[in-house]
Amino acid sequence: MTDRPQDPAALSQNGDDALVIFTPSGRRGRVAAGTKVLDAARKLGVDLDSVCGGRGICSKCQVAPQIGDFPKHGVSAAAGCLSDFNAVERRYDEKRGLKPGRRLGCQAQIMGDCVIDVPPESQVHKQVVRKRADIRPIAVDPVIRRLLVEVAEPDMHDPSGDLERLKAALRDQWGVEGAACPLPVLARLQPVLRDGGWQVTVTLHDAGAGATILDLAPGFAEDAPLGLAFDIGSTTIACHLTDLATGEVRAAAGAMNPQIRFGEDLMSRVSYSMMNEGGAAEMTAAVREAINGLIGEVCAEAGVARDALYEAVFVCNPVMHHLFLGVDPKELGWAPFALATSEPVSGAASDLGLSLAPAARFHLLPCVAGHVGADAAAVVLSEAPQEAEKLTLIVDVGTNAEIVLGDRNGLLACSSPTGPAFEGAQISSGQRAAPGAIERIRIDPETKRARFRVIGSDLWSDEDGFDHGAVTGICGSGIIEAVAEMRLAGVIDEDGAVGSPAQIGLPVTVPGGRTFDYVVHDGTAFGGPLVTVTQADVRAIQLAKAALMAGARLLMDRRGVDAVERVVLAGAFGAHISPLHAMVLGMIPDCPLEAVVSAGNAAGTGARIALVNKAARAEIGRVVRRIEKVETAVEPRFQEHFVEAIAVPHKTMRFAGLEGVVRVPGVRFGGGDSVNARSRRRRKSS
Amino acid sequence: MTDRPQDPAALSQNGDDALVIFTPSGRRGRVAAGTKVLDAARKLGVDLDSVCGGRGICSKCQVAPQIGDFPKHGVSAAAGCLSDFNAVERRYDEKRGLKPGRRLGCQAQIMGDCVIDVPPESQVHKQVVRKRADIRPIAVDPVIRRLLVEVAEPDMHDPSGDLERLKAALRDQWGVEGAACPLPVLARLQPVLRDGGWQVTVTLHDAGAGATILDLAPGFAEDAPLGLAFDIGSTTIACHLTDLATGEVRAAAGAMNPQIRFGEDLMSRVSYSMMNEGGAAEMTAAVREAINGLIGEVCAEAGVARDALYEAVFVCNPVMHHLFLGVDPKELGWAPFALATSEPVSGAASDLGLSLAPAARFHLLPCVAGHVGADAAAVVLSEAPQEAEKLTLIVDVGTNAEIVLGDRNGLLACSSPTGPAFEGAQISSGQRAAPGAIERIRIDPETKRARFRVIGSDLWSDEDGFDHGAVTGICGSGIIEAVAEMRLAGVIDEDGAVGSPAQIGLPVTVPGGRTFDYVVHDGTAFGGPLVTVTQADVRAIQLAKAALMAGARLLMDRRGVDAVERVVLAGAFGAHISPLHAMVLGMIPDCPLEAVVSAGNAAGTGARIALVNKAARAEIGRVVRRIEKVETAVEPRFQEHFVEAIAVPHKTMRFAGLEGVVRVPGVRFGGGDSVNARSRRRRKSS
Repeated sequence: MTDRPQDPAALSQNGDDALVIFTPSGRRGRVAAGTKVLDAARKLGVDLDSVCGGRGICSKCQVAPQIGDFPKHGVSAAAGCLSDFNAVERRYDEKRGLKPGRRLGCQAQIMGDCVIDVPPESQVHKQVVRKRADIRPIAVDPVIRRLLVEVAEPDMHDPSGDLERLKAALRDQWGVEGAACPLPVLARLQPVLRDGGWQVTVTLHDAGAGATILDLAPGFAEDAPLGLAFDIGSTTIACHLTDLATGEVRAAAGAMNPQIRFGEDLMSRVSYSMMNEGGAAEMTAAVREAINGLIGEVCAEAGVARDALYEAVFVCNPVMHHLFLGVDPKELGWAPFALATSEPVSGAASDLGLSLAPAARFHLLPCVAGHVGADAAAVVLSEAPQEAEKLTLIVDVGTNAEIVLGDRNGLLACSSPTGPAFEGAQISSGQRAAPGAIERIRIDPETKRARFRVIGSDLWSDEDGFDHGAVTGICGSGIIEAVAEMRLAGVIDEDGAVGSPAQIGLPVTVPGGRTFDYVVHDGTAFGGPLVTVTQADVRAIQLAKAALMAGARLLMDRRGVDAVERVVLAGAFGAHISPLHAMVLGMIPDCPLEAVVSAGNAAGTGARIALVNKAARAEIGRVVRRIEKVETAVEPRFQEHFVEAIAVPHKTMRFAGLEGVVRVPGVRFGGGDSVNARSRRRRKSS
Repeated sequence: MTDRPQDPAALSQNGDDALVIFTPSGRRGRVAAGTKVLDAARKLGVDLDSVCGGRGICSKCQVAPQIGDFPKHGVSAAAGCLSDFNAVERRYDEKRGLKPGRRLGCQAQIMGDCVIDVPPESQVHKQVVRKRADIRPIAVDPVIRRLLVEVAEPDMHDPSGDLERLKAALRDQWGVEGAACPLPVLARLQPVLRDGGWQVTVTLHDAGAGATILDLAPGFAEDAPLGLAFDIGSTTIACHLTDLATGEVRAAAGAMNPQIRFGEDLMSRVSYSMMNEGGAAEMTAAVREAINGLIGEVCAEAGVARDALYEAVFVCNPVMHHLFLGVDPKELGWAPFALATSEPVSGAASDLGLSLAPAARFHLLPCVAGHVGADAAAVVLSEAPQEAEKLTLIVDVGTNAEIVLGDRNGLLACSSPTGPAFEGAQISSGQRAAPGAIERIRIDPETKRARFRVIGSDLWSDEDGFDHGAVTGICGSGIIEAVAEMRLAGVIDEDGAVGSPAQIGLPVTVPGGRTFDYVVHDGTAFGGPLVTVTQADVRAIQLAKAALMAGARLLMDRRGVDAVERVVLAGAFGAHISPLHAMVLGMIPDCPLEAVVSAGNAAGTGARIALVNKAARAEIGRVVRRIEKVETAVEPRFQEHFVEAIAVPHKTMRFAGLEGVVRVPGVRFGGGDSVNARSRRRRKSS
């Protein structure tokens, strides 16, 4: 098959050994002339991939030898520092094409001093590109690998099972000891071994607790194994189909969580389970069905079969976690909010009714506490606050806000019941973030009139060509901006009362029962709706933001600080909140505006990290155990902070660069019985 | 709850310590006065059971203190050597009754020198009664245990999952590390912990590879866990419902293997799989359904629910093994007869579609070779030839005979295709062993007439009151005796030819085509059948016995011996074969008649041992790996032995005691073209 190895002595510059330097790792050492590059890389601990174990089949071990003088490395590499192209390389080049300057590491022999670059795609521990520079990169550290093995043929005079010979080959050729073989794989073993002429590509799962054979393919299997990262939210479920060798996302899909029909928020679902025999089982079936549906969608999008998927990683809040696993979440509905399990949960995907490869696995990240879930753990995994220099507040805004505060000196976490208002639910003109929903809004301080932008259009409502008939409602980020802008423009006062036209001095509000509604947009002339922000809407936002702020304050109390240095807004919704308006409202503690970053779907990112990175799974387990958990439901200080945070008091915020100074004006319409005043009275009387 | 411990100093004969001797183990040591008996037992490594961990609940730790002088032990035990009955013991005695002289080991304190007997029922490693004295006893060495644990209640200020606290309790209270918890158990965890007031009885599976929680019950669960031992034969399936704490069989049931409809013998089932797409899956479904049916039967008989069953152990031949696991057995149909796996296979019973407790397990014993199955491994486990002083030949007679030869110097094994004749199949008057089947037969050497006994009657056919109309056919053991008696009486000759009335000299045979049939019984006058042994029947038995003998000879050749010292006939059928007649026919090598024992269903016994004995599972794995496997299908010597073994030559057998001398007469009818003569010619011409 391969040419006769070249005579090393003919080319070696140092008699019988050569200095080899691998870049970018910088690892270096002397090897005997004639040593194959792949063997040298292994000897020196260089991260050079190989699926076929050096058989010249997989081409994963491609390297780029560098020719010339390298004063930095103290070496000069001549053209003949590697052996000539051999037959295997020539055939590979003809058939599949080798990039110029590339060699197969398992074929090329080191003949003299050389500098060998390992391109990113030839590294096992590739880095996955992340858009943000402020967080650590994701490295691929495969939980699932593909390995080509040659299995000894059976000998009836020394009988042993095909599986035992496969396991011996895994041990001898790859150092994998005692791999387990689930029944669906065992059932396929004999035909696959024979179809492949006793060469088989093993898909191996190895998360540290022991290896498992997930699949077998005859001969060398070209394609990479795939996996799924799921973020199961109370409202939506997001799914990313990921290449497990590169970490690359191949397809993504989202769906509403069908459990919504059993209750909008978490506690109403817990109640549904308490009140209805078999209610938890109904909700379990519903979410698993939706997940299987999403799997079908991403498979269709990426053009792959379900049985190419070998693992699914899930992050979710504790109630979703329990329901997904088939555990009744009712204990999460009352103190002491006991989790069934807080550790990571793994097993056969078929045990959850998931339709993936027959022996595929699932993995749930650990929960932090009864109200702080695996989604918070995933956010921590993505954002790594445990490594931060600056005191960081992370809020994952959803139906429940999960809040983490800390830095490398320690982390605290809690959950706060913000309710669904931030998601546009239970808001009179509220709607999901979909085309036609108002997502940006500005209110002129003079005219008190709103201009806005809707999802699906780049135009502001006061620009030419804006389609006034296309406005359908206000989404979650829009309602926050609307209330904040109403406050900045003096349409609502410090207690959150919506002013009457007389109080405001302009006819921008209309009576709505005994209170007033602010008119954002009157679409009736265009066949659309009248979009208003009612007094009740403002109250809902006040309660939600007070809950969020109270949770953050509680953690800050525990930490003994009254300010944070950095705020990370996580959650799909967090990606769209205007940090300025969030601070105007007092959703988050004041801090420099440029120190507020949006992490997008950090929980989903954490799930993707756990999917492709073995070490990260172990790490998050350790970090989660060390997090100090704070239970808001029983902290008297939480109620105090909550009541204090309901108002939107006047203040002046100064921002470097940006708008310079933002003044939240001092306004009190008086007369109206504000939420805050009622709460204050209640506190005093109790 | 308990009385204040007595003051040890008041009673101690040695100041502050006491000599304690446990019987029957003889373990002895000094303990501080005041030490509880259970603690002393643990310290001294005495096998004293406890499920509740010393809480005075389970009463498994009952002991019988002995009073008096024990010169053998060098100790004198006074009446006050143990503390007085305390409140726990008094309450237990009132409620449940404590046998006279018994104490609870977890309550009684050692106050002075004492001799304490641990009765058999208080030992974890109880011995299971076996009827035969010639083999080693079965000890219970539980794979599945029940442990009472007290779990810490959740604390919302230090949140942790209920499972994590349960695992901590298992570790701290029982030394069980890192028990796995399958999802069906996790789903029940929270209500069970609360129902039991944080006391829970854990059913734990621990086969050495890591513990698994199989079930949870609130508080203290009285009942013992149960398990199943299955012997899946080609023709029949046998099931024993067994108490896992005592090894006692609680119920038994058997059924025909429904795979018979796909083929009578193993190779025809393998052929069915080869010829029919989905044929293997059909057979897998059929056998699993039959097994689930048997589980229902034994549960009904014992009055227990399926979810009280925690493990099922299976033994079977390789084809049954593969089909049961869902592996296509076609590779077993041709050389090199490669097993998919030869190691033990374990997993979740639900993966095999078995309806037991939700987290129940299954375990298959290892296969020895492509034709020598887990049933042979089970026979070895039951009979322990690897410990024998005498060279032992074990034959497990079924559709395939599995043959083991050896002693403590080593074992050899092979399989021989005897076909179904020994089971009465493909015999003209053959039938299953059921009422009406002739099972014993004697032929008068003078009159050449047969007298016989049928299953379901104690009378011989020549005795008064015998119901001649009840005779329905001949069963497997009956046909062997019939042919052997025909040979002894000179009805057939050395080549197996059935003589004509003229050749025999008496009208006991009738023409049947070109050959003659021997009339065993003419039931036509009673409305019953004419029961004959035809020439074809004799040929079938000759071929079957020749295959069996050839296998045995092959192993004897390998071992370099021409005689064995002991023969064990295993298999349900083996239990009914007359050793004398087997030797007359040459089914087994000649050896002293008293050295032939019937092991009954040794494979089933082996399955029961593996079910209750953890060490036995490991042991049989080691023994099986060391067995020298001989593949009859490709051994030229097998054919030679086979041809040589077809005849039934004249010989004189002498037996100590018994009938003294048995002469197999020299008879040759001549003229007929015997199987043997044909075979000899074929061999010469090839």
